[in-house]
Amino acid sequence: MSKLWDRRTFLTLGLAGAGMTGAVLGGARLLKAGAPVDIPSVPEDHLGALSPLKILRDFDYGTVKQENGRTVREFRITAGTSELQLNSAVSFTAWNFNGRVPGPTLRVNEGDRVRVIFLNRGGHAHSMHFHGTHAASVDGIRPIRNGAATIYEFDAEPFGVHLYHCHVAPVSRHIGKGLYGMFIIDPPAGRPPADEMLLIMAGYDLNDDGKNELYAFNGLPNYYRDHPILIRQDQLIRLYVLNVTEYEAPLTFHLHANMFRVFPTGRTLTPTLETDVVTMGMTERNILEFSYQYPGMYMFHPHQDPIAEAGCMGHFMVLAPAETSGAMRMG
Amino acid sequence: MSKLWDRRTFLTLGLAGAGMTGAVLGGARLLKAGAPVDIPSVPEDHLGALSPLKILRDFDYGTVKQENGRTVREFRITAGTSELQLNSAVSFTAWNFNGRVPGPTLRVNEGDRVRVIFLNRGGHAHSMHFHGTHAASVDGIRPIRNGAATIYEFDAEPFGVHLYHCHVAPVSRHIGKGLYGMFIIDPPAGRPPADEMLLIMAGYDLNDDGKNELYAFNGLPNYYRDHPILIRQDQLIRLYVLNVTEYEAPLTFHLHANMFRVFPTGRTLTPTLETDVVTMGMTERNILEFSYQYPGMYMFHPHQDPIAEAGCMGHFMVLAPAETSGAMRMG
Amino acid sequence: MSKLWDRRTFLTLGLAGAGMTGAVLGGARLLKAGAPVDIPSVPEDHLGALSPLKILRDFDYGTVKQENGRTVREFRITAGTSELQLNSAVSFTAWNFNGRVPGPTLRVNEGDRVRVIFLNRGGHAHSMHFHGTHAASVDGIRPIRNGAATIYEFDAEPFGVHLYHCHVAPVSRHIGKGLYGMFIIDPPAGRPPADEMLLIMAGYDLNDDGKNELYAFNGLPNYYRDHPILIRQDQLIRLYVLNVTEYEAPLTFHLHANMFRVFPTGRTLTPTLETDVVTMGMTERNILEFSYQYPGMYMFHPHQDPIAEAGCMGHFMVLAPAETSGAMRMG
Repeated sequence: MSKLWDRRTFLTLGLAGAGMTGAVLGGARLLKAGAPVDIPSVPEDHLGALSPLKILRDFDYGTVKQENGRTVREFRITAGTSELQLNSAVSFTAWNFNGRVPGPTLRVNEGDRVRVIFLNRGGHAHSMHFHGTHAASVDGIRPIRNGAATIYEFDAEPFGVHLYHCHVAPVSRHIGKGLYGMFIIDPPAGRPPADEMLLIMAGYDLNDDGKNELYAFNGLPNYYRDHPILIRQDQLIRLYVLNVTEYEAPLTFHLHANMFRVFPTGRTLTPTLETDVVTMGMTERNILEFSYQYPGMYMFHPHQDPIAEAGCMGHFMVLAPAETSGAMRMG
Repeated sequence: MSKLWDRRTFLTLGLAGAGMTGAVLGGARLLKAGAPVDIPSVPEDHLGALSPLKILRDFDYGTVKQENGRTVREFRITAGTSELQLNSAVSFTAWNFNGRVPGPTLRVNEGDRVRVIFLNRGGHAHSMHFHGTHAASVDGIRPIRNGAATIYEFDAEPFGVHLYHCHVAPVSRHIGKGLYGMFIIDPPAGRPPADEMLLIMAGYDLNDDGKNELYAFNGLPNYYRDHPILIRQDQLIRLYVLNVTEYEAPLTFHLHANMFRVFPTGRTLTPTLETDVVTMGMTERNILEFSYQYPGMYMFHPHQDPIAEAGCMGHFMVLAPAETSGAMRMG
Repeated sequence: MSKLWDRRTFLTLGLAGAGMTGAVLGGARLLKAGAPVDIPSVPEDHLGALSPLKILRDFDYGTVKQENGRTVREFRITAGTSELQLNSAVSFTAWNFNGRVPGPTLRVNEGDRVRVIFLNRGGHAHSMHFHGTHAASVDGIRPIRNGAATIYEFDAEPFGVHLYHCHVAPVSRHIGKGLYGMFIIDPPAGRPPADEMLLIMAGYDLNDDGKNELYAFNGLPNYYRDHPILIRQDQLIRLYVLNVTEYEAPLTFHLHANMFRVFPTGRTLTPTLETDVVTMGMTERNILEFSYQYPGMYMFHPHQDPIAEAGCMGHFMVLAPAETSGAMRMG
């Protein structure tokens, strides 16, 4: 009884904590616990695994093992070098994890044992530094020379949206070349069902002048501008957003014609803010939740407009229930 | 009974949600519900409607109509071009809405039908993109050619402080030239009585180099520095603040010798933060509430000090109850 | 009874207000009320009072007097000029308060009368502008000429982390030269026992080009990188963090391998956010609380990586209970 009361109070608090009523937060539309999540099928794409449309909803849960009565999730990450075709005119020598920019999105449950077997074949010294809580010995600031390997092993804590990146100096160069990825730790009871996806904002310094000339969500400039992300009307969307744009002031993330609820660093189970523009400094991340009431095409971009117009621009295509979700390419 | 309890809990939550006691939030001085609001009379000014002192408290509620049993608020907005005398030495060719920079402050109640009849006489293609929730068809990203007109019509939701701006590319240029304004949606039960005013921070790129040389609150550099805003001691002040400064990192807003309570994006009825410096990225907006305990002159400015000293600087003149509120000009 | 309930509710609210459970916030480890605070002894250093290791935990409570039944805390502050050896190659002509950069950390209780006797021997006009609440007459924007003195006297309100700085124009130059310090107002009932320390992020414009070439925590570039801050495992650490970096976009503060709880502007008694990267605009300040579970060496720095690598970098050395805390110097 006391427990029930506590729980009810907590839920009330969660919704009301930032002074917002349940009505403000969308009521029934948001709380379809157990409702099936309707994710439109993703069109085939010649870019394959490198396609931002694949990266968008691609969560890597690792190889699961049971050791001494607990769950271990093992990941094998190799640092490498590759040419990224950023647009029809520009090719970029990227440094990457597992051949991707961004690297794989590692996803575990709070309390899991995480084991990352890291092999450096990148041609330079690299490392993997994780945000989140762990011992100094696995903090990933020690450079691993080319050809060498190491293991980062730690308990996944606390739940939230974190990241990993190379921490070899100059860090701005190693991140700017592509050595970053998202690291999600799910809370014990999970989050409500939703169409989940990730967006990582980053820049490209093409001429090594310490400034970015191009910007992108999930690796490729303007990709989602030209290949809209298909979502369903009234479907709860959960965006995991991360900013790793080096050489730049904090960016904002803006969604058109809608508001989103913000869960800073994913460290809360209830939102602390509702808005349509949120400022995100370097390595800050948020969970953003929203659903679209009306079908149609909607932009998202940082509201640093020159940066949006230099590649950090995308579209959501909101499909009405009846609409098919075939391949779509903007004119 | 249960309802009363819920309500009481919610109110308590609202105040305590950020860990602040009622006492911290100012107690009786802030909660003078129903108290008359004492706004000093504004001196006449040769700038007329363009005067930032007029713009400060000028809310445009539109033409109200009843259609099919609901309230429609109709606004007629014309895009144009004008010369703005930024100071005694500098004239700037501004692009504007209804002859003003910033454009008119549109203000409606949540749930009203909003009808904006937009006519472009600006000499270039323009549009009106609103922040807030609406259908894709009225998102205002489609350029309206010079001489053409369109209608943006949507339900006002959700309550909060929003904005509108031209969304024709390059957006930074169209906003930088002056095509922006505030859009306030009042909550159903309103907010407590207060002396309400708006401050929009923006920059001027005088030589088209993608950098600002001058900055202003509400259009004219240093206007409130030289013509202080008269307010009353112990009067609750409600500032609607918006940052639309292109080509710039996020700014802060700082109030001298006082603290303010922050309602991010105006999406809450209770504050979530109390401070005297708040960071605001491009197109972010806050409601700030405060009252001054002591009469006298107080600065407000972004704490990016070179930007403050290049025009984004103002004064509040706090009048004791007995003081007359005649025209005032700083030396 | 009603009071007890209110209090219990408030405490619950405080913890849960941002949607975080007590468990998330660390439970028993954080709430060791009355536990002794274990601060490793600080090694002797040839820099003496200028040493950032001394400045770190050096709180100036002033000279306490009783006048008319209330507590007055009197501080004597002299503005001066000095040469700061920023590293083995670079000397900088600093402007300072009481011979230090940053100036002394003034600390009082809410409601105390604060009396600051300011003498300017700096060779230029200077002033002391305090953040916090006070009358216009003591706002410190009036320049005090070289050789003159003044008294700033006001009631300490409200509790929180504030600052003071010279407000003579150009403010960016006066702050950039070193004329800033922290001003802490403790809440009436204090805060839980902790190892308390302050970190002020600032920049140095060495060649007067309106850009910073070096950065520092507490005055000296890379000092804590080379002389780690010794702290105890499982000890609650309370960081008072302030950003006064002129000529720069907002910075972040990042702690390695851990999360911290954020008390914005120190205006709350319970945290409103938990993360490991927080954005701080110019003159913003936060209280950050955390404890380290594992011994070892951990970096802290803004995640603007070029700025971290230009001097704004430090280490915590977390000592296990058995470890001695002798002098330590990084390679």
